[in-house]
Amino acid sequence: MGSVLNTLISREEAILRVTEVLGFPWRAKRESVNLLDSWGYKLAYDIKAVCRSPQWARSTRDGYAVRSADLYGASRSFPVFLNCIDEVKMGSVPSCKIKHETCAAIHTGGILPEGADSVLMLEDAERASEFIEVYDAVQFGENIIQAGEDYKAGDLLLHSGDRLDFASIGILASMGFASVDVFKLKIGVLSTGDEIIDFNEPLKEEDGKIRDINSWTVSALLKRKGYLVQQFGIVKDDIELIESVVSEMLKACDVVILSGGASASVRDHTADVLSKLSDPGIIVHGIRLSPGKPTIISGDKHNFRLAIGLPGHPLSCLAVMYAVVLPLLSAMLNGEPREQFRKIILPMERDVYGHTGTEELIPAKLSREGKVIPLPSKSGYIAAFRESSGFIRLGENVETIRRGEDAEVLLW
Amino acid sequence: MGSVLNTLISREEAILRVTEVLGFPWRAKRESVNLLDSWGYKLAYDIKAVCRSPQWARSTRDGYAVRSADLYGASRSFPVFLNCIDEVKMGSVPSCKIKHETCAAIHTGGILPEGADSVLMLEDAERASEFIEVYDAVQFGENIIQAGEDYKAGDLLLHSGDRLDFASIGILASMGFASVDVFKLKIGVLSTGDEIIDFNEPLKEEDGKIRDINSWTVSALLKRKGYLVQQFGIVKDDIELIESVVSEMLKACDVVILSGGASASVRDHTADVLSKLSDPGIIVHGIRLSPGKPTIISGDKHNFRLAIGLPGHPLSCLAVMYAVVLPLLSAMLNGEPREQFRKIILPMERDVYGHTGTEELIPAKLSREGKVIPLPSKSGYIAAFRESSGFIRLGENVETIRRGEDAEVLLW
Repeated sequence: MGSVLNTLISREEAILRVTEVLGFPWRAKRESVNLLDSWGYKLAYDIKAVCRSPQWARSTRDGYAVRSADLYGASRSFPVFLNCIDEVKMGSVPSCKIKHETCAAIHTGGILPEGADSVLMLEDAERASEFIEVYDAVQFGENIIQAGEDYKAGDLLLHSGDRLDFASIGILASMGFASVDVFKLKIGVLSTGDEIIDFNEPLKEEDGKIRDINSWTVSALLKRKGYLVQQFGIVKDDIELIESVVSEMLKACDVVILSGGASASVRDHTADVLSKLSDPGIIVHGIRLSPGKPTIISGDKHNFRLAIGLPGHPLSCLAVMYAVVLPLLSAMLNGEPREQFRKIILPMERDVYGHTGTEELIPAKLSREGKVIPLPSKSGYIAAFRESSGFIRLGENVETIRRGEDAEVLLW
Repeated sequence: MGSVLNTLISREEAILRVTEVLGFPWRAKRESVNLLDSWGYKLAYDIKAVCRSPQWARSTRDGYAVRSADLYGASRSFPVFLNCIDEVKMGSVPSCKIKHETCAAIHTGGILPEGADSVLMLEDAERASEFIEVYDAVQFGENIIQAGEDYKAGDLLLHSGDRLDFASIGILASMGFASVDVFKLKIGVLSTGDEIIDFNEPLKEEDGKIRDINSWTVSALLKRKGYLVQQFGIVKDDIELIESVVSEMLKACDVVILSGGASASVRDHTADVLSKLSDPGIIVHGIRLSPGKPTIISGDKHNFRLAIGLPGHPLSCLAVMYAVVLPLLSAMLNGEPREQFRKIILPMERDVYGHTGTEELIPAKLSREGKVIPLPSKSGYIAAFRESSGFIRLGENVETIRRGEDAEVLLW
């Protein structure tokens, strides 16, 4: 059997080394898509505001555009009377001007007429022909949104690499984008291993096989993060077979991900196959990360190809995907390994144990009370992921985090 | 101008009333899709485990399958010697039997041979022809995953209505699902208002118009939650126009969502149009929710149609989508308004102010330190949503939450 990996580097070093050696960012494929079809993809450029929003000060209530000073001290016992001189039409700039002791009826979203500084809510006044009887005061600026209050022309609103979601699509719509450029990075996914069978093969207990899980979880996770995925199925642990499929994958895809075949065992041929990429070939072979140690990262900087061998255990495979592969893909697109997860620091619900010298990732869920509950990571095989919210991260220098102490959680 | 809404009910009452009156769940359209294409959709049935996983006890390391009792006290100074009788082949059930002071080489994922109870890691032994010299003890069960430890036959693994993601797709793959039935509920989205223009119309400052935001945020949010969306554009605030488009929408879609046109102002005709659905027509007109008060919910229980009028302000529109519409859609599919958001209780970073008598939703972000930061909700127009993590929920009886006190956050 092979020797123990002896050139382990930290996760951070691994990501930086690959980024440097391969000269990220690479010029990635981008494509213009209709705004609604852009949902879930990664924006291919920074977006600065082309105008301010809102363009005009607008009412946020149904009521009356007023000068707040006129209503000082108004109450049910001492109402104030205003002359209602106009009604602001929706979708047009009002021509009236609000002077001392006058007002104009206005609807939610209506443009504030000149002279008015606030809006009195409909229910705080009673209309009587051309007058309104006002029962409450308003503060300067109350019930309005100022011009440019949401954003100003030139504001940097969205960043290249942002995954488009309802808020960012709303921002683009507010500026009149009908379509938008998104990255379309294509990633090929392959499972390797003599013990792995596909869904169309019969699973007989006496054969000792298991169903392929990794190519599905990896593919679904990549879709979730806005990448295009092509599955290449399963190959047995035979170097010529693996080599031939990987060569096909490298033709069709920007990135190639293999799961299984990254352990130190003699049957694993991933390293041999990935070492044939050049230049430079293998950049990382082994990471001080648990689970995830036997990760292999290889690249071809002239043909812009990245190939990664992931460990075969479903939990390890997902841990490396999250903590190594997603930051690398981000670096490929934007030059810096922007983290693909939100981090949050929360207290542990119970003790969690780690080891110094290795960064550890432990699946965890968050309780309703904002506590971190570690999930048993041995049985975190796949079903436990259902209820998980992310990984607890124990840095290389952290051994144990006691109940009540803060832990760093990388959220899905 | 119209009278103030006077039949407000609580959000919870509104959801329950609609669920009861319309007799949810309705039999929703479902469709079989390939497993990878199922990502993001809602599962159309409960999934119970058809087998256990893993089927056999397996090694989680490269090393040697051993009887832990044989290694008691083993160390570098006092190594133990075992006879290595076999090597477990990947993907087959081992035929060897581990007896006293014997072992078998095994790879990560290999099936544990009979008689072995644990796995010694490769690096804790040295091979010398048919013997291994063992430098460390192992505990009973160490470095293995037991048969059925992940899940057992009959375990309820996934629920109808779950949105399929990497973990659930992995679980389905582990049981050999090649395709899966998902709900395909079709929702039509329309923006109304004289002030709203589409991306293909010129926006001139002097016209006082604004771009349509709501139909985009609503559509993107629905896609995010696994629904099919059809956009019907924008109609001016003209009752006959709205009626004609809504009638077309009701033919093509299961659910119709209108934004704008739900305020109390005379120009808003949504209520008139939605009141023409029957039976029963309008079920809810006004909710004690801020923002979101002027929400209208109408239904036709014989033709299985739900129609909802949302307020026009982008923040209000999203608040009602999140807190009312998504639970209603869940109830339509599964009979109970299962919440579509994860809730978490965390301390406030600063004070937040509300009013009693109304449930309030305030956009918020979470700091890295696990504190809740309220975002200014007036300027939460649309750009502020970029950095938000969800809404702070202030119940009807909550007025102020002070810095350091716990707040309930509904996460996106």
